[in-house]
Amino acid sequence: MIIVMKHTASEEDIETMIREVEAKGLKANVIRGTERTVIAAVGEERVAGIGSLESGPGVDEVLPIVAPYKLASRELKPESTTVRAGTLAVGNGNIGVIAGPCSVESEEQIVSAAHAVKDAGASALRGGAFKPRTSPYSFQGLKEEGLKLLAEARNQTDLAVVTEVVSPDDVDLVSEYADVLQIGARNMQNYRLLEATGKSPRAVLLKRGPSATIDEWLLAAEYILDSGNPNVILCERGIRTFETHTRFTLPLASVPYVQQRTHLPVVIDPSHGTGHTYLVPAMARAAIAAGADGLIVEVHPSPEQAASDGYQSLNFSQFDEMMCACAIIAGAVERQLGSLS
Amino acid sequence: MIIVMKHTASEEDIETMIREVEAKGLKANVIRGTERTVIAAVGEERVAGIGSLESGPGVDEVLPIVAPYKLASRELKPESTTVRAGTLAVGNGNIGVIAGPCSVESEEQIVSAAHAVKDAGASALRGGAFKPRTSPYSFQGLKEEGLKLLAEARNQTDLAVVTEVVSPDDVDLVSEYADVLQIGARNMQNYRLLEATGKSPRAVLLKRGPSATIDEWLLAAEYILDSGNPNVILCERGIRTFETHTRFTLPLASVPYVQQRTHLPVVIDPSHGTGHTYLVPAMARAAIAAGADGLIVEVHPSPEQAASDGYQSLNFSQFDEMMCACAIIAGAVERQLGSLS
Amino acid sequence: MIIVMKHTASEEDIETMIREVEAKGLKANVIRGTERTVIAAVGEERVAGIGSLESGPGVDEVLPIVAPYKLASRELKPESTTVRAGTLAVGNGNIGVIAGPCSVESEEQIVSAAHAVKDAGASALRGGAFKPRTSPYSFQGLKEEGLKLLAEARNQTDLAVVTEVVSPDDVDLVSEYADVLQIGARNMQNYRLLEATGKSPRAVLLKRGPSATIDEWLLAAEYILDSGNPNVILCERGIRTFETHTRFTLPLASVPYVQQRTHLPVVIDPSHGTGHTYLVPAMARAAIAAGADGLIVEVHPSPEQAASDGYQSLNFSQFDEMMCACAIIAGAVERQLGSLS
Amino acid sequence: MIIVMKHTASEEDIETMIREVEAKGLKANVIRGTERTVIAAVGEERVAGIGSLESGPGVDEVLPIVAPYKLASRELKPESTTVRAGTLAVGNGNIGVIAGPCSVESEEQIVSAAHAVKDAGASALRGGAFKPRTSPYSFQGLKEEGLKLLAEARNQTDLAVVTEVVSPDDVDLVSEYADVLQIGARNMQNYRLLEATGKSPRAVLLKRGPSATIDEWLLAAEYILDSGNPNVILCERGIRTFETHTRFTLPLASVPYVQQRTHLPVVIDPSHGTGHTYLVPAMARAAIAAGADGLIVEVHPSPEQAASDGYQSLNFSQFDEMMCACAIIAGAVERQLGSLS
Repeated sequence: MIIVMKHTASEEDIETMIREVEAKGLKANVIRGTERTVIAAVGEERVAGIGSLESGPGVDEVLPIVAPYKLASRELKPESTTVRAGTLAVGNGNIGVIAGPCSVESEEQIVSAAHAVKDAGASALRGGAFKPRTSPYSFQGLKEEGLKLLAEARNQTDLAVVTEVVSPDDVDLVSEYADVLQIGARNMQNYRLLEATGKSPRAVLLKRGPSATIDEWLLAAEYILDSGNPNVILCERGIRTFETHTRFTLPLASVPYVQQRTHLPVVIDPSHGTGHTYLVPAMARAAIAAGADGLIVEVHPSPEQAASDGYQSLNFSQFDEMMCACAIIAGAVERQLGSLS
Repeated sequence: MIIVMKHTASEEDIETMIREVEAKGLKANVIRGTERTVIAAVGEERVAGIGSLESGPGVDEVLPIVAPYKLASRELKPESTTVRAGTLAVGNGNIGVIAGPCSVESEEQIVSAAHAVKDAGASALRGGAFKPRTSPYSFQGLKEEGLKLLAEARNQTDLAVVTEVVSPDDVDLVSEYADVLQIGARNMQNYRLLEATGKSPRAVLLKRGPSATIDEWLLAAEYILDSGNPNVILCERGIRTFETHTRFTLPLASVPYVQQRTHLPVVIDPSHGTGHTYLVPAMARAAIAAGADGLIVEVHPSPEQAASDGYQSLNFSQFDEMMCACAIIAGAVERQLGSLS
Repeated sequence: MIIVMKHTASEEDIETMIREVEAKGLKANVIRGTERTVIAAVGEERVAGIGSLESGPGVDEVLPIVAPYKLASRELKPESTTVRAGTLAVGNGNIGVIAGPCSVESEEQIVSAAHAVKDAGASALRGGAFKPRTSPYSFQGLKEEGLKLLAEARNQTDLAVVTEVVSPDDVDLVSEYADVLQIGARNMQNYRLLEATGKSPRAVLLKRGPSATIDEWLLAAEYILDSGNPNVILCERGIRTFETHTRFTLPLASVPYVQQRTHLPVVIDPSHGTGHTYLVPAMARAAIAAGADGLIVEVHPSPEQAASDGYQSLNFSQFDEMMCACAIIAGAVERQLGSLS
Repeated sequence: MIIVMKHTASEEDIETMIREVEAKGLKANVIRGTERTVIAAVGEERVAGIGSLESGPGVDEVLPIVAPYKLASRELKPESTTVRAGTLAVGNGNIGVIAGPCSVESEEQIVSAAHAVKDAGASALRGGAFKPRTSPYSFQGLKEEGLKLLAEARNQTDLAVVTEVVSPDDVDLVSEYADVLQIGARNMQNYRLLEATGKSPRAVLLKRGPSATIDEWLLAAEYILDSGNPNVILCERGIRTFETHTRFTLPLASVPYVQQRTHLPVVIDPSHGTGHTYLVPAMARAAIAAGADGLIVEVHPSPEQAASDGYQSLNFSQFDEMMCACAIIAGAVERQLGSLS
């Protein structure tokens, strides 16, 4: 790390900070500039931490040099990871498309959706049984009954099931039914939940929180990896900005940025990322063109009747059309959409 | 709610939407403007929900009219709520100051901090035993041992104890030791946790998430209120913006805005809200001047040795000076700092 | 517009607001809900303005119904506009690529860049002669000498020239040399400049300001259109958000959103939108896949020697590779890259 | 500056970058860490610039060490600057309050406002004659006629006049009538305008752009200082964030931050910073408590009739009440409101 001293820092301040650095087991290199002195501290920066050094006398700021995450970094593991779960594969040229309704509402709804998305080429089925909702007055999900309906849909279509888990206590239950455990944006920093999924045999799809920096998101992945689960799929679903015409702002540059920094695959959620049905297909195409390893898309038999998220769901024919366009784009970037058989 | 139709909407689209509105048990009023037709739907808007209506044919957007929260609103309860917990009282002119270290580190640390903040006029002690940390490599807290040390500090000083709870499973345990359960910013939308604290006999301090809108924050409070706990203290601790010179951006206008919309008291956290020790006193004074019902401030015997958040903690003399300045400002706005005896 | 009254508004307040609405030449429709009364005011909303009504007694908020822009709106002109300038055409399936260095630095630099981007398939040349720079200590551009070098590059390659104008006083001069006048992000709300370019015979490329809402951006276009110039190209170049790994956040959902609201073509600037060379090609591809009408890209003979923006410029071979990939994506969305001959 | 090399950088890359650094006249210090090598480049960083170095082979990022502004920095001039203009003084304990309508509308309006704000203790009169407006359909100001009315108001009250200038061509004209030239938020990076005001004998009030970083804002001040005008007042008026309940988010921590970095005085605009009349007094009090050197506040004889910004203007009695409260807060922080006689 680099400790930047104030221009008013005294020699005594500098000496104090050298001692503080050495007390943390780091080696201090002092560089005296024309306006400022900086101390470059060499060693195990992640373990040492930088926090308390900023309180030192005469210190202006402390700049980290290494990324705060390790297991997630491409420096540790240069080759890209492919995550496989049933019919789903994401990474290394496999583009996986996860599709289905926001919430599981009934057997007819989820089974018909499963057939429709499979026919259109999706590689996995999504559907929420445990629903975290902003308002206590909104539909909260069918819970275990919903999980059973998802299992029934899998029985009929073979599609891998991706569904959200909202509490550490539910991880075992959800793991019985699901192929991939989804951690929602609101729970990205629910560390107990991260640790619990890290001990599950299921793959984990980790959504980015709407105000999380990319470093915070990768540190959340680090919690899962560090708990023993190597099968983490990152999911960019949009960040909160001043723009209000879309529900969130979908920063597709996350795709190439994250792919440079980490070996984990990254999928895009154009449904939450835009919040409007009519914007979803364009952003799905753009995500594939940007190099995303997959998509997760809300699809509902009749969006105008949906118990949740109808305004951003595609109906079956809209999804079918989107998949055709995405398959062509995938070909244009020398990749392929598809599912494992 | 107001349903704004597209300028291209047909009469049939309008008829369809009137039927959809009526099917939700609302009364439809059609107003034909020079460019657009709008449908004003009158009735129980919160129950009806607006989501799926946006998917209707010819609909441009749906604008809610009433606030989405109810129990938290001043419309339901016009008089301001005072929350009391041991020596702490916030609301209706009582300004409560909660102070202490980010993390409980040792008996000496927490007990000395408790005495120091009490002497300076604080009304409650803060200190984290269960620590949610961005990195798995950071100090994670002393857990139950930390709770016991907090209880010891209370024994010696009588100060009410405010400490964080991070999991529904811990609510009973933490409630045994604490006077106020703190829900951290990362858990503001951890609904299981909100519901669990809603069933605790302890007051709850609910921090705003860094990307939460004020409506989302008040809906989180609604979960607690709706679960049966009326003693909710709101805590503004800064939002995430493009500004990087401060750790977060502390929007003090939240104070008068929230006080107009809700009856719940609101306190300010100038430590997380700025992220730099030298900015804390100015923002603490400003918060009191803006009408905040209290403060929560990080104070540590020696910030440069702190296991966490040293860069934003005050030492004892800095806190003492801050309290003197705040007491004068409080008098200037005809309120008073202080604790219950 | 919809005037939402407070739940505490009296009958007298409502009467007052009805009179205020009628005094503005609008018709007032009063709708009494279960919790709130709203007044729907019908008529020429843009002319009436909403500002002062919010100060009325008992008013909670005023919601506009129509878009604030008119000439730019698709409601006024349903068919998409194609803007043509020399070899450049954007709109209605024509994808125009504008490429070249951030600043014109020398004859050799700009002429070699012009040849290289033309050979790679670009339809116009960009290059700054008047440079607005954040720091007074940065290179400020060659000014008129730079315009002459751009003209020389056009002579040799026939490529249309796109260059920035920063002051109303310079519009005539720049119009002599350029085919398209660029208004930079910092000047998006420099209304004198907008009006001056509105009176120029040249097309105008209007960049979005980094904190401008889409409505503000389209209102800036409205100033140009209203001054008599119908040839406006919108350029999305990224907004400022909390994300710091990229220089700005490039919200590609702007493309389908803007295309729905306005008839004007929209191009994407992946160079400023990301701020890092290695992210540019992915976002260029994504922009085309999202349906953008064109691109504007920084290309320099040797980015590491550039007087400005080297960190986000492509070299010739990187640009060539990017164009090949974009041409394939364009085909996949049934459009074509290219220039007019 | 610190050049952080990628972990994959070769020895040759490092050698190349050492040569690049030396070619810029800087001295290169190489520090080899456990994961990364960094090069600390010592010398005239502002002149050298960092941009093109980021394009070098094997470079991950380049971190600046010194602030990019110089004349504005407290390092160059440690003592605080007081700016004086007629009855207005801001800085070094003098709190100046600038008040008046958004736009000059008529003689009666501006003269009555001048008397009212003077009686309430304001030290200067504000009023816009040249109005930059988001929509071309909004009131654009009385222009020179407005300046004459401001001069008449000054004749009657002696109050210094603060008014906006929007074009370099108008600087001389406005300087004839005004004591302080205001540069609006939209023009913060209109460098021609900054340079023109830098050559005026009048003081300049420079508003922060809603998406400008503090460094960009101080660099804009640097343009004025560098053009020869030392009398610059900084004005924080809020930044654009995801929060929509207020028009902008007013980050009062800017006050102590900026006061530490620069010697220039900083005033707060609670009117634009909140956008709602009822939030203005609380934020005005908070600004004074935070240590602001002054306020600029919109006051109108009848806000509900205002041609612009009525929704955020105070009427005379509201302003009077605000001033009483602010005077008490000013006393509490050992400063004083007031005007020069």
